[in-house]
Amino acid sequence: MQNISEIDNLIKLISKLPGLGPKSAKRIILKLINNRQEIMKPLAETLTIVFKNVVRCKKCGTLKSGLSKCDNCENPNKKFNKICVVENIADQWAIESSTIFQGYFHILGGTLSNSNNQRKEDLLVGALISSIKEKNIEEVILATSATVEGQTTAFYIQDSLKKLKIKVSKLAQGLPVGGEIENLDDGTLISAFKNRKGLNSESD
Amino acid sequence: MQNISEIDNLIKLISKLPGLGPKSAKRIILKLINNRQEIMKPLAETLTIVFKNVVRCKKCGTLKSGLSKCDNCENPNKKFNKICVVENIADQWAIESSTIFQGYFHILGGTLSNSNNQRKEDLLVGALISSIKEKNIEEVILATSATVEGQTTAFYIQDSLKKLKIKVSKLAQGLPVGGEIENLDDGTLISAFKNRKGLNSESD
Repeated sequence: MQNISEIDNLIKLISKLPGLGPKSAKRIILKLINNRQEIMKPLAETLTIVFKNVVRCKKCGTLKSGLSKCDNCENPNKKFNKICVVENIADQWAIESSTIFQGYFHILGGTLSNSNNQRKEDLLVGALISSIKEKNIEEVILATSATVEGQTTAFYIQDSLKKLKIKVSKLAQGLPVGGEIENLDDGTLISAFKNRKGLNSESD
Repeated sequence: MQNISEIDNLIKLISKLPGLGPKSAKRIILKLINNRQEIMKPLAETLTIVFKNVVRCKKCGTLKSGLSKCDNCENPNKKFNKICVVENIADQWAIESSTIFQGYFHILGGTLSNSNNQRKEDLLVGALISSIKEKNIEEVILATSATVEGQTTAFYIQDSLKKLKIKVSKLAQGLPVGGEIENLDDGTLISAFKNRKGLNSESD
């Protein structure tokens, strides 16, 4: 490689992104160099704008443009009676794209665990409780991951909301769609058995 | 997805990069957001610097920092007697990382073909001829691709250098290392047969 320090720096930075290594970083840089005006310039500008403007909302924890109100929790046109509590923005995006849930999101920004030093205060539970009261929320859906940390965090949130006397639910556990019994782990099979649904009774 | 136009723009731009689509773009953006100071800020800054500073050298066609001399063709410490002519920067990087060639590079920036409107003037052949004279070059190695366009371009360069009475060579064609006969295309097999080397005579 030539000694162009700017390019070396760019390769190092791009290599830190998920799914990319030095080889793909070089391929990306060549694409950028061959499309200076069409991609490189707007990408540099947009990244700078995102770095300056996009922040985490202090109330609901989602991303918002610092220049405008939070589209999730401060949009007066949205009148929902449910809040979905998720661990991170990626989870919010996944649930939004499934279109199964219409309501507000509360993004914890992590889980309670010793390994990542997430503190209880960072989960914005105080703001969640204020939101529930202000917005006349009727149900809080805990959509944390089916991991030890996710379930511990869900339990902590559930406990924090006890005094509000509000419906709190969590996502069902069982077979994933397309899951083949022979390939599923023990934990999933155990949940699926424990949570099995009667087909011939009045339960639905 | 939320309506944050800055993020939408960033997803669109990142999706244009090779090997990346909207899903991986989102994953990358989440990584950037979770590493604002460590990755997003320096990436935005470095991209801006590269956009402003890194240009194609007008003599040899490689990338150089606009602030300094070209490390390939203007470095007075480098005294080589060979120039390797390649189609693009990626080819230069591949040959450099193989360490097989020590010498100057001349980057054509494309091939002669009707499809991409590459004009003969863009290939910097005039600058190549000046370099050959100035640097007392003894051999020009044509390392264009083994495609119709690459070989046509090599022939054009070879023709342009005729008057200089200088050694001009091109890369050997044949079996790639690790190539299994049964999987090779006809063209490669034909070249490998035509260019076969005697093992028991004085040829080397």
